[in-house]
Amino acid sequence: MSQSERSPDLLVIGGGVIGLAVAWRARERGLSVTVLDRGELGRGTSHVAAGMLAPVAEVEFGEAGRRVLALGLCSSGMWPAFAQQLEDASGIEVGLLRTGTLLVARDDDEASELDRQSTFRDSLGLRSERLRPSEARALEPAIAPTIRRALRAPDDHSVDPRAVLRALRRACEAAGVRLEEHTPVARIETDRAGERVTGVLLAGGDSRPDTVRPAGAVLIAAGPWVQEIAGLPAHARVPVRPVKGQILRLRDPAGPGLLNGVVRFEGGYLVPRRDGRYVLGATVQERGFNLAPEVGGVYELLRDAHEVLPGVSELEIEELSVGLRPGTPDNAPAIGGGALEGLSWATGHHRNGILLAPVTAELAVATVTGGGGMRAGEEPFDGLLEACDPLRFVPGARAGAGERTGGAAARGDPARMGASRDEEAPVASGA
Amino acid sequence: MSQSERSPDLLVIGGGVIGLAVAWRARERGLSVTVLDRGELGRGTSHVAAGMLAPVAEVEFGEAGRRVLALGLCSSGMWPAFAQQLEDASGIEVGLLRTGTLLVARDDDEASELDRQSTFRDSLGLRSERLRPSEARALEPAIAPTIRRALRAPDDHSVDPRAVLRALRRACEAAGVRLEEHTPVARIETDRAGERVTGVLLAGGDSRPDTVRPAGAVLIAAGPWVQEIAGLPAHARVPVRPVKGQILRLRDPAGPGLLNGVVRFEGGYLVPRRDGRYVLGATVQERGFNLAPEVGGVYELLRDAHEVLPGVSELEIEELSVGLRPGTPDNAPAIGGGALEGLSWATGHHRNGILLAPVTAELAVATVTGGGGMRAGEEPFDGLLEACDPLRFVPGARAGAGERTGGAAARGDPARMGASRDEEAPVASGA
Repeated sequence: MSQSERSPDLLVIGGGVIGLAVAWRARERGLSVTVLDRGELGRGTSHVAAGMLAPVAEVEFGEAGRRVLALGLCSSGMWPAFAQQLEDASGIEVGLLRTGTLLVARDDDEASELDRQSTFRDSLGLRSERLRPSEARALEPAIAPTIRRALRAPDDHSVDPRAVLRALRRACEAAGVRLEEHTPVARIETDRAGERVTGVLLAGGDSRPDTVRPAGAVLIAAGPWVQEIAGLPAHARVPVRPVKGQILRLRDPAGPGLLNGVVRFEGGYLVPRRDGRYVLGATVQERGFNLAPEVGGVYELLRDAHEVLPGVSELEIEELSVGLRPGTPDNAPAIGGGALEGLSWATGHHRNGILLAPVTAELAVATVTGGGGMRAGEEPFDGLLEACDPLRFVPGARAGAGERTGGAAARGDPARMGASRDEEAPVASGA
Repeated sequence: MSQSERSPDLLVIGGGVIGLAVAWRARERGLSVTVLDRGELGRGTSHVAAGMLAPVAEVEFGEAGRRVLALGLCSSGMWPAFAQQLEDASGIEVGLLRTGTLLVARDDDEASELDRQSTFRDSLGLRSERLRPSEARALEPAIAPTIRRALRAPDDHSVDPRAVLRALRRACEAAGVRLEEHTPVARIETDRAGERVTGVLLAGGDSRPDTVRPAGAVLIAAGPWVQEIAGLPAHARVPVRPVKGQILRLRDPAGPGLLNGVVRFEGGYLVPRRDGRYVLGATVQERGFNLAPEVGGVYELLRDAHEVLPGVSELEIEELSVGLRPGTPDNAPAIGGGALEGLSWATGHHRNGILLAPVTAELAVATVTGGGGMRAGEEPFDGLLEACDPLRFVPGARAGAGERTGGAAARGDPARMGASRDEEAPVASGA
């Protein structure tokens, strides 16, 4: 191990799309970087993701929804260049499909809701077009003739997350990021005062002793599995819960052509790949770390897909899988520095981890390098880091994000002591 | 290799439940026996089977239906002793559950059909009881209150085919049956006249030469994969086609109790195991050797199961699998000697392979040992071998089964020459 490997400038915990994107970008900025993953790289949440780049279709009411929208629009705009650079760096195509997304309503209730959603998008200045059923079927002839209405989001696209993972891995390797799989972090290590993070502890097993791995800075991109990492006082924790998603991977033996773009409906979506494969997702369930597919959720996905696209009947089922999205209490991500110096966060991306990877990488690298906003002053990034403040769930934490960069400026704040994870808000369960 | 291993008395092609049951019983009768399987033992059709022992629920109209019924009733009667002997020989429980089976009708059409089925069973002297919905729900409280009628078959039980496979394997090993996995048979070897089977040819690969494996007798229990075996003239072939079945394995996280016995409905069934697991099956499709699960079939199984048993919604999906049942033109099995001396058959069991394993083993061993009916004169076996005559699909083959035991008495018959596999009747496709 060289000096920088023994104590890298940045140690990233979690090798999903977020962790690898941060690592790749940080390495490009000259930092020595190590990524630790508890299992195989990219076999957690990212492996199951559908890959919609859909800030317009996904937009939600409320203040947190606005924040996620701003992030999503920024990141959506970054995706074409990000994909191109990633493909150049890795030699691997990432399956970016700029097809737009069609939202369909199957009955009068859903049509009314779609109208409301359309008005809401108009009020935000987002591009969307209301379509009659005949217009929708002209775009997607496979859609059932019984649909009542449709809304087209021409700027919502998709990418293949598994291809992105392969490409990020290759790009990281090529750039000299050290990648360590099957290396779970047991604990965050701090200095004696408990204010500055100095590295991590890897739990030993039968065949190896515990190992301390020092690092200049640590970034947690462990999704919901952050719960497994000890060593953080309550006021320094970001509350992240697992949000179960059941998802099917389908294949048309007749090849591509059933769908031209993404189709969304109440309760699910179908995302086409170039090769006649489709992703049908997804349930949204609060079930803890339960990774078992269930009859009810799978049945409803298949039923709804049938109603909207009768042709799915002929598709083969290649895979039925379950993922755990990382959800914060307001379902917006936590990106940036936290309560301890030297520790920053990139997690809580919920349903939007693939979409938000490019902007997250920029913001996280800015945090780690101490810039507080690497491109501060460049209009698209202004205010985004504040919007993702990992400390927003800690009562009494009032400092601006600029004062709490994970690289150098973070300071322990006695006022934050005593805050607990009871802040985790219960969220309604739904399939 | 000892003498008997180099040239066993009996070489069985196919190590599913049928092949292993024949091998075990033949070894018990003193024969040296080798089983060859193209893959892992028991990973073909038997691995996917649900394990219903349901001659009464499965009975079909028509002459072939009667033949299968006679076999099924005989084998069903043998199962308790067969299971006991198998458990004693192996030390492995096979999960025999003597629960009875409930057939339910969801609407008036299905209720009329159930009445017709009930009358048909009465006419055959089979035990079944018509139940009102309230009576059915007293037996199985999880059944939807909307069902219209039910029929109970108190003598139709179930067993766990994977446990049976494990037990058969252990019993075979303990008895000294030689088991060879990943050993596909390329060709049946005959004498110069082409009338007597002398063994098989194993195709070599990059690392090994072709190998001739002589045997006193050969029994084909290869299910639909008999199509892969060369060396048989057209008149000596038994036409077997693959009949696709899609099936789900479910698990109740709350433990056992949702169902007490097997529940059948139009298009499917649910078979409980002791431990809170269930098998939900199955489609019946003519798709060749296609092993891909399809949206349409899986969706309909889940939909129908939901209608009959709303509680399935909470079950976990542990496995989605596809099996290929071996079907003959009349869907009744082919058991006994064929057109060539030294070759006998035990295949074509379609939906009834697990049920028919005990009787098939007796009949096949009788054939191989040249008895023409090992227990001929014992009432339950009379006529059964004739009913399964593998030559019934060959025009002009008129000899009685007693004249064509695979062990010693089979003779080539010029009248059979020229018969072709065009006899394979098309069978309606259905999911």
